[in-house]
Amino acid sequence: MKGNTVFFSSAPAVVSSAAVGGKMEGDGPMSACFDKINEDPFFSCETFEQGESQLLKQAISHALEKGSLRCENIDVMFGGDLLNQCTGTTYGIRTLGIPFLGIYGACSTVTEGLLLSSLLVDGGYASRALAVTSSHFCAAERQYRFPLNYGGQRPPTAQYTATAAGALVVSAERLPPYVRAATVGRIVDMGVTDAANMGAAMAPAAYSSIRQFLADTELTPEFFDAIVTGDLGKVGSRLLCELFARDGTDITSLHRDCGTMLYDFEHQDVHAGASGAGCAASMLCGYFIPRLRSGEYRNILFAATGALLSPTVNAQGESIPAISHAVWLSYENGAAPDIRFAGRTVS
Amino acid sequence: MKGNTVFFSSAPAVVSSAAVGGKMEGDGPMSACFDKINEDPFFSCETFEQGESQLLKQAISHALEKGSLRCENIDVMFGGDLLNQCTGTTYGIRTLGIPFLGIYGACSTVTEGLLLSSLLVDGGYASRALAVTSSHFCAAERQYRFPLNYGGQRPPTAQYTATAAGALVVSAERLPPYVRAATVGRIVDMGVTDAANMGAAMAPAAYSSIRQFLADTELTPEFFDAIVTGDLGKVGSRLLCELFARDGTDITSLHRDCGTMLYDFEHQDVHAGASGAGCAASMLCGYFIPRLRSGEYRNILFAATGALLSPTVNAQGESIPAISHAVWLSYENGAAPDIRFAGRTVS
Repeated sequence: MKGNTVFFSSAPAVVSSAAVGGKMEGDGPMSACFDKINEDPFFSCETFEQGESQLLKQAISHALEKGSLRCENIDVMFGGDLLNQCTGTTYGIRTLGIPFLGIYGACSTVTEGLLLSSLLVDGGYASRALAVTSSHFCAAERQYRFPLNYGGQRPPTAQYTATAAGALVVSAERLPPYVRAATVGRIVDMGVTDAANMGAAMAPAAYSSIRQFLADTELTPEFFDAIVTGDLGKVGSRLLCELFARDGTDITSLHRDCGTMLYDFEHQDVHAGASGAGCAASMLCGYFIPRLRSGEYRNILFAATGALLSPTVNAQGESIPAISHAVWLSYENGAAPDIRFAGRTVS
Repeated sequence: MKGNTVFFSSAPAVVSSAAVGGKMEGDGPMSACFDKINEDPFFSCETFEQGESQLLKQAISHALEKGSLRCENIDVMFGGDLLNQCTGTTYGIRTLGIPFLGIYGACSTVTEGLLLSSLLVDGGYASRALAVTSSHFCAAERQYRFPLNYGGQRPPTAQYTATAAGALVVSAERLPPYVRAATVGRIVDMGVTDAANMGAAMAPAAYSSIRQFLADTELTPEFFDAIVTGDLGKVGSRLLCELFARDGTDITSLHRDCGTMLYDFEHQDVHAGASGAGCAASMLCGYFIPRLRSGEYRNILFAATGALLSPTVNAQGESIPAISHAVWLSYENGAAPDIRFAGRTVS
């Protein structure tokens, strides 16, 4: 590591990825990014929680199929979700027989999984690693807030939890995009206590990790075609740009946020935008990775963001800690001559 | 990986570890293993959940202090716990500023953290990695079962969640014990639906991973001074030995279970034994690692076990998936001549 950033010497590749969504996601502007859209929020199951497990399993199936892979080709899987005890994941994968390491990073989970998968492949410990995460609006609403039937009103700063999942496979093959470096985030808690304003709670964590990444790699924001955040929504995105503006850095033209991409603000009632672990995961797997594979994007910095609260501690008056891990994905797999870093450096 | 097992070529060392407990743990036969005992279940905080965060933070502080380390000496920390959204961990560490990757493996968390820490050190990605986990009886009871005031009765198969935390630091120094290999577990669900009998749900997962480890390493059970499980308790321990007996393997004299070690069955009302992520973590950090450092033990196989359920899905009638990751800890750091494996092999 140099600073908080790991440089991957072998440039592990994301060789396959898939995104699966629900009805709202299929009705939105990103519908073409999904490999499958499910109209039924129960996914032909009896409960929303079982539905989320199906959703997550579908994403894995599509990612494997697109890579012409089977479960036994995967050495290790990283996964987690927003449900208590990550049961969306554990019940979704329990019949697959893939060696499993559970992770929890709230809505930052997809970058944590990508980072760890890349580490295991780069280090030669695994031939192929899979990362997966999901979220489900109906399951999340009743767990974090109220049962849907209650019809609770939400303030304009609130975001809408995506019913979506993303899965990706990392291996040492030569196929763009490549994972070049990743910054492990630190927890940042600026004292925001409003659980209906996650964007404000998470923006400082995204700022911290992106800034750390740029310092550790000595790259400038302009090197990237896009600096992407997970689900800051409208409020958090504005705050992120403001934090960079204070440093004299204008990232407004480079910044994209999955939370503002997934839905149509005019025709879909999503307040400040999308959220949920499946938001960043589906946009990474269904939008950005295909565009990096085709060469439409050459380099992106992808920083999913997670709010590490629970309803219990929030009800006890606690503020909301947040975290963001930033991953550099590139169409190129070698160090370009104009990029100044000396490969992997152990601190 | 060979099979599901990672072989560490540099034999990363556990250079420091610490265990912290509550009153019950201090009253038990393992009291001498704890660096600190807290009589107050609130840990001078207002809620049990805040108390758990203090408990976990104390374990980190002691582990750092015993290794003459400060937070800035740790490149990356892995942690998680049983509270919803792992808030015991995230609120406990939010002021420390250490790059953090959240993990969730229920009561198997300590071996997942040790495995991942060893990977990052072995691969040269981190100079020092820290793993931590905790559990708190009062916080776990009201989250998973009933508020304490309710006075719910528990069946004889039930276990008592330890109020305990363990933290350990892995680095590339030459100091026993060394982490030689680790098997990443698969989820095993044999259909047990009784959440008051976690031992029965978890025993097949421990069996699966230990057997896989032995197959991948071509080591025999007798090679080890002890084969240790996390918190199977009396019921699960008996089942584990029965499963091995079916293969014609008698592990009864080698098997130790942290869940049957932590409390005094005669004088403490703990039914089938101890459980909770802090049970295996405190026994690993406070009992086994010091004995491996002194050479009292030469080799142990440590397989913590986790039940990956939530009260929600269990109430929906689901059975309980379980997982176990097995780690080989050794006083020696080189491959003994009689051990037949060819170092790290990419499958």
